[in-house]
Amino acid sequence: MTVQREDVLAARDRVSSMIDRTPVLQSDALDRHVGTAVFLKCESFQKTGSFKARGACNAVACLSSDERSRGVYTHSSGNHAQALAFAAHLHRIPCHVVMPRSAVQAKVAATRAYGANIVFCDDSDAARRAAADQLGEETGAVFVHPHDDPNVIAGQGTACLELLDEAGPLDVILAPIGGGGLLSGTILAAQGDEPCPRIIGCEPAGADDASRSLATGERIVEFTPRTIADGLRTPLGDIPFTIIRSSVDRIATVSEDDILAALWFAWERIKIVIEPSSAVALAPLLNGSVDVKGQRVGVIVSGGNVDLTAVFTLLEGTV
Amino acid sequence: MTVQREDVLAARDRVSSMIDRTPVLQSDALDRHVGTAVFLKCESFQKTGSFKARGACNAVACLSSDERSRGVYTHSSGNHAQALAFAAHLHRIPCHVVMPRSAVQAKVAATRAYGANIVFCDDSDAARRAAADQLGEETGAVFVHPHDDPNVIAGQGTACLELLDEAGPLDVILAPIGGGGLLSGTILAAQGDEPCPRIIGCEPAGADDASRSLATGERIVEFTPRTIADGLRTPLGDIPFTIIRSSVDRIATVSEDDILAALWFAWERIKIVIEPSSAVALAPLLNGSVDVKGQRVGVIVSGGNVDLTAVFTLLEGTV
Repeated sequence: MTVQREDVLAARDRVSSMIDRTPVLQSDALDRHVGTAVFLKCESFQKTGSFKARGACNAVACLSSDERSRGVYTHSSGNHAQALAFAAHLHRIPCHVVMPRSAVQAKVAATRAYGANIVFCDDSDAARRAAADQLGEETGAVFVHPHDDPNVIAGQGTACLELLDEAGPLDVILAPIGGGGLLSGTILAAQGDEPCPRIIGCEPAGADDASRSLATGERIVEFTPRTIADGLRTPLGDIPFTIIRSSVDRIATVSEDDILAALWFAWERIKIVIEPSSAVALAPLLNGSVDVKGQRVGVIVSGGNVDLTAVFTLLEGTV
Repeated sequence: MTVQREDVLAARDRVSSMIDRTPVLQSDALDRHVGTAVFLKCESFQKTGSFKARGACNAVACLSSDERSRGVYTHSSGNHAQALAFAAHLHRIPCHVVMPRSAVQAKVAATRAYGANIVFCDDSDAARRAAADQLGEETGAVFVHPHDDPNVIAGQGTACLELLDEAGPLDVILAPIGGGGLLSGTILAAQGDEPCPRIIGCEPAGADDASRSLATGERIVEFTPRTIADGLRTPLGDIPFTIIRSSVDRIATVSEDDILAALWFAWERIKIVIEPSSAVALAPLLNGSVDVKGQRVGVIVSGGNVDLTAVFTLLEGTV
C-alpha cells in the first residue's frame, strides 16, 4: 500500500499548525430524525471552507526544499484550487492553477486572493489536461493532484482522526466520495480504532462511478456526471480505488431530491451552511437508507463553499 | 440591584446540565474584514435554537416545588415560547403559551412539540395581555416573563461566562438588545473580568427604543418597530433598563440594509445560519461603525431560528 495509517498520523503532526481543528457538532433535530447520536465533523469551518486544506497543506509540507522553490500547480474548478493556493501562500511559494472558464467567480476570486496564478481553459477534460501539461513545462513547478496522491490522502484522513478523538469510539462513519481522497483517508485513519468503525462512502446516483467501479472491480474513468454536488463529479482516483475496494463497508447512492432535502435540513435545522457535496453524506441518514439505529455515527461534513443564491433557486422548486 | 453577577454564576451551575455549551467560532473571513480577532458565541446551536433556553431553564429551576406543580405560562411569538416549553418539558410540568395568530408556523409547531398548550390571540399588545391574564387565572400557573425577570436575566448571562471562559479576556463584547434580558445578563456576567470588557448593545434603527430611552433617561414603552429583526421588536424591560443604563458602554444602531448584509456575510462567509436579530450584533463590526482595531472582540450570536425562504426573498432584492 502506497499510503497507510502511519502517514495519516504523521500528516496530523505536520499540518496541525496550518489548519483549524474544526468543531464536532451535534444536533437534537438530527438525532431525533435519525434516531441515534450523530457527530458532525464540520470541515465547512475549515481554512478555505473545505477539508481540502488538509491534503494540500500536507502535500506542500512534504516537498523537498528544491521542489518547494519550484512552486506547485494543479487543475481544479473548486475547493482544491483554493486549498493549494492557501498552502502555497503559507509556505510563500508560487502556485499555478488551471481553472475552467465556467468556474464559480467566488472560487476564482478566493484562489487569486491567496496569490495564485490562474490559467483559464475550456471545460473539457482534454483542454484541462493540455493546459496543465503546458503549465508544468513552462513553470517547472511540482504537480499536486487533487486526490490521486499519497500525501494528499494522508492529509484528508486527519479530519477523521480529530473526529474520533473528540467524539470517542464510533460504530460507523459516513463521508462523501468524489475522487476518493477524503474517503480513503478516512478509511486509513479509522483503522487504528478497536473495534474499527464501518466506513460508508456516499455518492450521488447521478455520479455513481464508485459503486459501479466496486461492483465490476474495474475503475470507471469516463462518465457524464449529473448532480448538483459539484465536488463529486470527478472520477474515482487510482490510489483511492485500491484503498476503498479493500476496506469500505459499502457505498450508498442518493438521489438529487434527497441531496437537496439534506441540504435544506442542514441549513434550517442544524443551522450550518454546507455545500451540496456535504449533503450527500447526510442524505442516507435522513432518508433511512442506511440502518444505524442505536449506533454512534460520525459524518465528515466536507465543506461549505456554495453559491447560496443558485442553490436557493433550485430549492424553491422542491421544498 | 435585583440581580447580580453572583446570580449569573449560580445560574451557570443550575442550567449546565440542561443546556448545551455552544461552540465559540472564529472566522478568517470575518477577522480579515474587521481587522481584528472576533470570537462568536454561537447560541444559534443552543437547545431550541437560541440563548432563550438559558433564561427559561434557570427560571423554571428556581421555582419552589409548589410553584412548579402549578406549571408555567408566558406570552411570546417566538424564541421564549420554545425555550419555556423546553424547560417545562425537562421538568415535566405544564406549560401554557399565548402566541399571536400571526406567529411563524414553524415556531408554533416547535413549541407544541415540547408539549406546551398554546392559546392564540390577536396581534395587539392589549389582546396579548388580556389572553395572558385570563390564562394565568384559569390555570394558576406561574408567569415567566421573557426578559423582565431576575432569574431569566441571570440565565441569559451564562452565555457570556462561557464565552469569556473559552476565548480568554476580551476588550469588548457586542450583544443585540430587544427586551434587554441578554444584554443585561451579559453586562452582569462580564463584571467579574479584570479589566472589565466594554459592552456594546446593538439594535435596529427601526426599533431604537433602547438608544432613545438611554438618551432621555426615561424608558420608552410605546413605539412601532420597523425591522426584520423580529426578536428585537419588544420594548426594553424595566429591570434590564436599570442595569443597562448604569453599565453599558454604548448602544450601536444599524440600518435594515446593514442587518441584511451582515446576515448574508454570516451565511455565506462564516457558514453559520443565524437569524436577523443575531446579524444586528455583527453589523456594527462589518460596517465599521464601532472602532475595535487591535482589540479582542466577542459577539453573542443570539439565535438561528429563521424562515430561510422569507429571508432569501428579501435578500434577492439587495445583494
